[in-house]
Amino acid sequence: MPGIAALSKVYRVRAELDTMLGELRPGDRVPAERELAGRFGVARETVRHALRDLAVEGRIRRQGRGTVLARPKVVRPLAPEPTAEDGSGVVRSLLSWEDGEADAEIARDLELPLQTPIMTLERLLHADGEPIALERIDLSLDRFGWLRAGFDPLGSLSATIGDSGVEYGGATERIETVLAAPREAGLLGCRPAVPLFRVVRRGMDTQGRPIERVAALYRGDRVAFEVNTGGRGR
Amino acid sequence: MPGIAALSKVYRVRAELDTMLGELRPGDRVPAERELAGRFGVARETVRHALRDLAVEGRIRRQGRGTVLARPKVVRPLAPEPTAEDGSGVVRSLLSWEDGEADAEIARDLELPLQTPIMTLERLLHADGEPIALERIDLSLDRFGWLRAGFDPLGSLSATIGDSGVEYGGATERIETVLAAPREAGLLGCRPAVPLFRVVRRGMDTQGRPIERVAALYRGDRVAFEVNTGGRGR
Repeated sequence: MPGIAALSKVYRVRAELDTMLGELRPGDRVPAERELAGRFGVARETVRHALRDLAVEGRIRRQGRGTVLARPKVVRPLAPEPTAEDGSGVVRSLLSWEDGEADAEIARDLELPLQTPIMTLERLLHADGEPIALERIDLSLDRFGWLRAGFDPLGSLSATIGDSGVEYGGATERIETVLAAPREAGLLGCRPAVPLFRVVRRGMDTQGRPIERVAALYRGDRVAFEVNTGGRGR
Repeated sequence: MPGIAALSKVYRVRAELDTMLGELRPGDRVPAERELAGRFGVARETVRHALRDLAVEGRIRRQGRGTVLARPKVVRPLAPEPTAEDGSGVVRSLLSWEDGEADAEIARDLELPLQTPIMTLERLLHADGEPIALERIDLSLDRFGWLRAGFDPLGSLSATIGDSGVEYGGATERIETVLAAPREAGLLGCRPAVPLFRVVRRGMDTQGRPIERVAALYRGDRVAFEVNTGGRGR
């Protein structure tokens, strides 16, 4: 762990880099460590530390042997209307689709008895050809077993459920930050220490009965969320 | 950087710790590193790494010379109604209140010309006697200079503005994850590598004119956000 004096130097360099990066466009090359160290009059290790933090936050990214300014983050609406789930050019791929039993957390969120048979789908979400989220969907097998025959796992789950006559009455989303575990980091193509958003959404029918539970991990270096309440957005 | 095999071991230990922690109550002591290393048959360094990650995520916390199970995260509503800003037992303290000029970001968000005179307040938010967020509020000096005489800086800004006759028409919030800088970590009482939520809120009047810009850093190890759309929440 570097000391506080070393850290202050890192953040001074970071502030100078911030200004410098403000003048670049996505894909533009960031000068090499050695050049930056010379320009700011600090050790290369200091520059490296500042660049690593900027990479974790998604401002810059490795490309080939160099570093470039990253594209702006993917903005996702929070608590979207279920049928709007498909917007914004996000593409899905299916990792697994298995039967199982509700553990304590799933049972609580779906309001089912412990060990109730459930179905679990794991999907990867891509934007701009890059993985941005890993989602795990849990559903009651008894209530939604028919999805096995009638659902394209790359499509919108809530649209399919909505088309079947189940009416969505609302949703709850809870958002936390967590660090990526190695499997998650591997699937998402990010390093293990990158902060992720963990978003757990529970969709409910008009009687307030839970329909599905979707626990998604979004790359914090690639995704920002936006919420609008009334009025005009920007 | 530990290798992938070492990391897998860390996450196996983490999974076992998760189960173990599930049986504790907030404030209960977590067994010592050495004892855990013995129980799981791994090196102390592996246990230490797993405990550090759990601390970063806010599941456990240091207390005196030991480690205890942390309290549940503070849940904050997203995009709250402006006048509800005061809910949930959050207490504020004022760090600074200064005049300045709009930089590029502030000018864009407040829709003001560059270098327009502004007022900037910095406040610390506490919950359960602990800092949970650092917020910076920017306002047009021309439009809101009267707040200097009429605003208790520990109170609700939007309630005061609302009482003055300005009507809120809506708000936009954008949420990202960032890492704490040393000053922020110091003020928030967390370590520099902890992931934070960065929430930028823009309140707008009924004509869609920006009223204030509030950029807040929330401790990711202490805060979760929740959004409800329609239907019954839990």
